[in-house]
Amino acid sequence: MTDFRLRHLPLDTMREHVIIIHERAVHDGNLGLRPLDRARVFGADRETGKQREITGVLNICSDDLLEADEIGLSKEAFHDLGLPEGAAVGASLAVAPRSVDLVRAKLRGKRLRREDFDAILADVAARRYSRVELSMFVLGCALQKIDLAELTDYTLAMIATGQQLRFADPIVADKHCIGGVPGNRTTMIIVPILAELGLKIPKTSSRAITSPSGTGDTMAVLADVALSPERLYRVVDEVGGCIAWGGALELAPADDILITVERPMEIDTEAQMVASILAKKKTAGATHVLIDIPVGPSTKVRTLELAEHVGGLFRAVAERIGLRLEIVTTHALGPIGYGIGPRLEALDVLSVLRCEQGAPADLREKALMLSGRLLEITGVEPPSRGYAAARRVLDSGAALARFDRIVAAQGRRELPPEAPVRRQIAAEQSGRIQQIDCWEISRIAKRAGAPANVSAGVKLHKNVGDNVTRGEPIFEIHADNDSQLQNALEYCDSVRHLIHFE
Amino acid sequence: MTDFRLRHLPLDTMREHVIIIHERAVHDGNLGLRPLDRARVFGADRETGKQREITGVLNICSDDLLEADEIGLSKEAFHDLGLPEGAAVGASLAVAPRSVDLVRAKLRGKRLRREDFDAILADVAARRYSRVELSMFVLGCALQKIDLAELTDYTLAMIATGQQLRFADPIVADKHCIGGVPGNRTTMIIVPILAELGLKIPKTSSRAITSPSGTGDTMAVLADVALSPERLYRVVDEVGGCIAWGGALELAPADDILITVERPMEIDTEAQMVASILAKKKTAGATHVLIDIPVGPSTKVRTLELAEHVGGLFRAVAERIGLRLEIVTTHALGPIGYGIGPRLEALDVLSVLRCEQGAPADLREKALMLSGRLLEITGVEPPSRGYAAARRVLDSGAALARFDRIVAAQGRRELPPEAPVRRQIAAEQSGRIQQIDCWEISRIAKRAGAPANVSAGVKLHKNVGDNVTRGEPIFEIHADNDSQLQNALEYCDSVRHLIHFE
Repeated sequence: MTDFRLRHLPLDTMREHVIIIHERAVHDGNLGLRPLDRARVFGADRETGKQREITGVLNICSDDLLEADEIGLSKEAFHDLGLPEGAAVGASLAVAPRSVDLVRAKLRGKRLRREDFDAILADVAARRYSRVELSMFVLGCALQKIDLAELTDYTLAMIATGQQLRFADPIVADKHCIGGVPGNRTTMIIVPILAELGLKIPKTSSRAITSPSGTGDTMAVLADVALSPERLYRVVDEVGGCIAWGGALELAPADDILITVERPMEIDTEAQMVASILAKKKTAGATHVLIDIPVGPSTKVRTLELAEHVGGLFRAVAERIGLRLEIVTTHALGPIGYGIGPRLEALDVLSVLRCEQGAPADLREKALMLSGRLLEITGVEPPSRGYAAARRVLDSGAALARFDRIVAAQGRRELPPEAPVRRQIAAEQSGRIQQIDCWEISRIAKRAGAPANVSAGVKLHKNVGDNVTRGEPIFEIHADNDSQLQNALEYCDSVRHLIHFE
Repeated sequence: MTDFRLRHLPLDTMREHVIIIHERAVHDGNLGLRPLDRARVFGADRETGKQREITGVLNICSDDLLEADEIGLSKEAFHDLGLPEGAAVGASLAVAPRSVDLVRAKLRGKRLRREDFDAILADVAARRYSRVELSMFVLGCALQKIDLAELTDYTLAMIATGQQLRFADPIVADKHCIGGVPGNRTTMIIVPILAELGLKIPKTSSRAITSPSGTGDTMAVLADVALSPERLYRVVDEVGGCIAWGGALELAPADDILITVERPMEIDTEAQMVASILAKKKTAGATHVLIDIPVGPSTKVRTLELAEHVGGLFRAVAERIGLRLEIVTTHALGPIGYGIGPRLEALDVLSVLRCEQGAPADLREKALMLSGRLLEITGVEPPSRGYAAARRVLDSGAALARFDRIVAAQGRRELPPEAPVRRQIAAEQSGRIQQIDCWEISRIAKRAGAPANVSAGVKLHKNVGDNVTRGEPIFEIHADNDSQLQNALEYCDSVRHLIHFE
């Protein structure tokens, strides 16, 4: 039954195993496989004799790509099978993981138990789910009711899929913003402030999920963020904190895979969000966590009632999994800072740390306020003294010096040059800006190439509260080439309510 | 901006455009693309100068597969772009179709209008949706409420995406079973009976969606089913009816694409089902339609109340789109006939048409009953005379002769040989069989290779109502090889309630 030779087709398919078989082999061998079916590839390790197998999604090819007696595997599939090129392998139709039945039950509204989530997430982490099945799970959790006990079980199951960082300190601080506000890069200011005041804050951030830049993307402009656990421990030991990319740490591998379908969905799901965030905080070793929920007409959470509800979920699950957690609800009528996109946001952060004249006041104030709260809930400062302490550290230049040490410890990177193609967009009317649509301005930055093109994005000349005259430049699109600029401009033209005037 | 040479990578990715770019090109060119992003490939036709483009899902490759200055396109993507190999092309991040915002609105519970469905289905039919986005739409329609007006709009939008067959006859009959009952191949008996009695019945069927065989698969064992509209008209003109595969006719191309994600989901969705079935009946030119809703503990529709509800939806939408429609609710406690899988089911059909001694009585009776109802609603026979008329045609051998002419007109195929690997499964207790789980027995047949391996499946020795003695063979698994037999046996062992005894 192992009539095929293994071929490595170095396709990076983003955590989905792809198996490629020649159409002649399918027909002649009557393998019973159709494109997009789930197939199983198996073979024996010649040295150990151990049977190895992987499952994946089938693509059928004709001519050129493969011989009829070859089976091609994408990069991760080849790696996970662990057999050499040319090895004798067989293929058959694979049985869908039984846990997909539990996902179907969830779609029908059934309550899942801890062992159900364990079964689902174990199969997800082992790459046994196709993108369609991952979508089913994400949407099932998003659209069907999940009660508190169920959400706690989901979070605990998520924690169980990965490794856990451990620190000797009794208090390990962490913060998280649920997102939706472009430019909101407070983490890169808060971490050096807290580390300077003696708190351990090993911050792990994600790359952008639905936004034009995540803290992981922005920090990556200035320093290496893909730290192994060993390097992360070393950095935190040396400088008290870090701003690392969580994805490199395999803290919640099932979540990292679910995100690959969540990202193109551009939807947010409360349950998914609470489980995902709290699982990552817990596995990152945090004991005290501050969650920032921005509320505004164009952010993820649009009303105070909803913020109250989501905050309640965070608090309740955190308590059940042994995390001290506090919620801060912030008001958001537009982006924070001037830059949207990795490089432009990094410039804002540096400007605040350097206490420059034109530094964005909203970013500075928000970072100080959140730092203050974290200093208070961890007991480093007494109640209502946190803000002042944070401000002293920032204004003295100590936070900047600490940030510089963190960057050096993680591995300094040279700031990339300004994007070569830029276009100013003029105000269509005069008046005072009341709101800038967070969702739409983010999409313009994404069309311009952010976050993959690190210098691309949007640079605001004016923000909420500023007065503008008709014809005055209100923001500037940065792109690496004309085609991306055109993409952004076209989108820009199609948006109706980007900027609201009073 | 067109710095790449086009390469055809003959991957059959089942209606999803795949674009493959070398990782070096992505990094060096700073293209701003990440795996699974949506990318746009564009270039000018050298002869006409016309600009052409397609969008698709990006895969990144390294080494071997492509040079760094090449862009590879999967089969359909290459075909749809319409430029030759070696053509100068460029790539950029593509804008997601705006209609995905409407899908997100549906996921949040918003009511969609006719123009919304038009926008969504046009983008779906043009292959602009990724599998994740297709999943979002299918699940949005499945899990959120859709009212009658909305469902009618959805159906009309589905009809508008494809071409429509037209027949001169004032009455064109059609029937459809909503599925869930394995072996239920009444169509292949009803069509020759009705055609013999002078009715036009150009039946288009689907391949299996969630089942081990669709009528399209079973008929394909005996005759060619991939008829072009021209051939279909000729066959129907010659012999009064046909049993063709709808997918070759592009009657509702958006639906054909949605099915590629619906199939692996193995879930059914009322709205999707009603819109999909009625759109296909309407575009196939039908005027009078009979819908069979099997109700049973393991079929798609499990209660009479639900059947009533679904039937009501069918009736209401049919009326609004100008179809005369009647519902038959049938009772199903297990499969119909003995065979499950294309070849085994075809044998049952032939046995009924030949009026053989051992022909499955349930299949015969159901086909006669449905034929009778169709004869009555089309006015060919007066009320309560349809059954007798159908029976005369079947018992006289006229239906068999007509079936033979239909097979000849479509293109006769040689019956494939019996599957080489077979295993009998013995009854674990004695008694009278009360139920056989339709869903689980189907899955056993699928694990054995059906429908892709046409001879694979399950052959029942006993069905509901039969008495068995412990140890007596109750059914037999047919497979093309040992590995598929093992798959089926393993699944079989894991099923708890396959057969219920009284």
